Amino acid sequence: MAHIELGNDLPGIRGLMAYRPETEAPLNALAEMLLRNDDNTLTRGERELIGAYVSYLNDCFFCQNVHGALAGHYLECNIQQIDDIKQDFRSAELTDKMKALLSIAGSVQKGGKQVTEQQIEEARESGATDKEIHDTVLIAAAFCMFNRYVDGLGTWAPQDRQFYVNRAPQRALEGYQSSVYH
Amino acid sequence: MAHIELGNDLPGIRGLMAYRPETEAPLNALAEMLLRNDDNTLTRGERELIGAYVSYLNDCFFCQNVHGALAGHYLECNIQQIDDIKQDFRSAELTDKMKALLSIAGSVQKGGKQVTEQQIEEARESGATDKEIHDTVLIAAAFCMFNRYVDGLGTWAPQDRQFYVNRAPQRALEGYQSSVYH
Repeated sequence: MAHIELGNDLPGIRGLMAYRPETEAPLNALAEMLLRNDDNTLTRGERELIGAYVSYLNDCFFCQNVHGALAGHYLECNIQQIDDIKQDFRSAELTDKMKALLSIAGSVQKGGKQVTEQQIEEARESGATDKEIHDTVLIAAAFCMFNRYVDGLGTWAPQDRQFYVNRAPQRALEGYQSSVYH
Repeated sequence: MAHIELGNDLPGIRGLMAYRPETEAPLNALAEMLLRNDDNTLTRGERELIGAYVSYLNDCFFCQNVHGALAGHYLECNIQQIDDIKQDFRSAELTDKMKALLSIAGSVQKGGKQVTEQQIEEARESGATDKEIHDTVLIAAAFCMFNRYVDGLGTWAPQDRQFYVNRAPQRALEGYQSSVYH
């Protein structure tokens, strides 16, 4: 049960967004722009993977499952493959660019000042553009917010991980403009 | 110098927002709703103080000075008084409610799961409403994003702290709808 009385039984961030629609709007607009907008050289799957990885590092069950399932949907991976990436992305079958960006995201999760010039250099050498580095940092930072919002208010989450996998295709279709589908 | 080529010499988050206006819009809309919207029983000064405190805990020089100066402006405190609150809010001249909310914000900064039922209970007993607890958690979470965004991309910040104090009245007037005044 959440720390506050939400007046609904929606799980995770959905319950919070229904409780406070005034803050839902900019939060969803941010997620939509960062994770789904088509004017981006990072694929939706790559962006969701960054979000899932940061949510894993923050130990946020709801977010890592929602966004892990979405990453799996876009990247055509199963839940085990996404788990393997979260636990050890360096050994995964990912491009050097994605590994460099996930490394930056992991540092952002610890704190902004943890990102090093060397990490930026490695990302550039693997082909990452400045905009991709920018978006990686902001996606990672945004999930440090979403994760804290979800867990800081003690929201509940379905424990059956297949629930998130089953919902991912519909979520991918609907996007983040409505909390109903988040 | 920032980790990426921003194409402008604006400090802190302002340079990032000018670089990527597509993400500026929802970020500023979120800040405006959380920190300035008048339909809130927490004053603007109290909300800025929560943001400044979390930015202090995250060691983000730019954000703690921007929002510390705004808190000082609204609460009619000088920079030393704001520093004293950031360093030891329990000994400060604040209401029990603000102390309870700052305690929650400090836990959110560490991680969402650090917030305890006892902290929520103490906030309630000191008169905090559910909406105030909600907004405190989301403000603290949002600053964990803003701080990581600003420092994760290695932005520069004016080192003279009086710079932020001098700008606070104009920022208070203009709000967060334009990065020019953020």
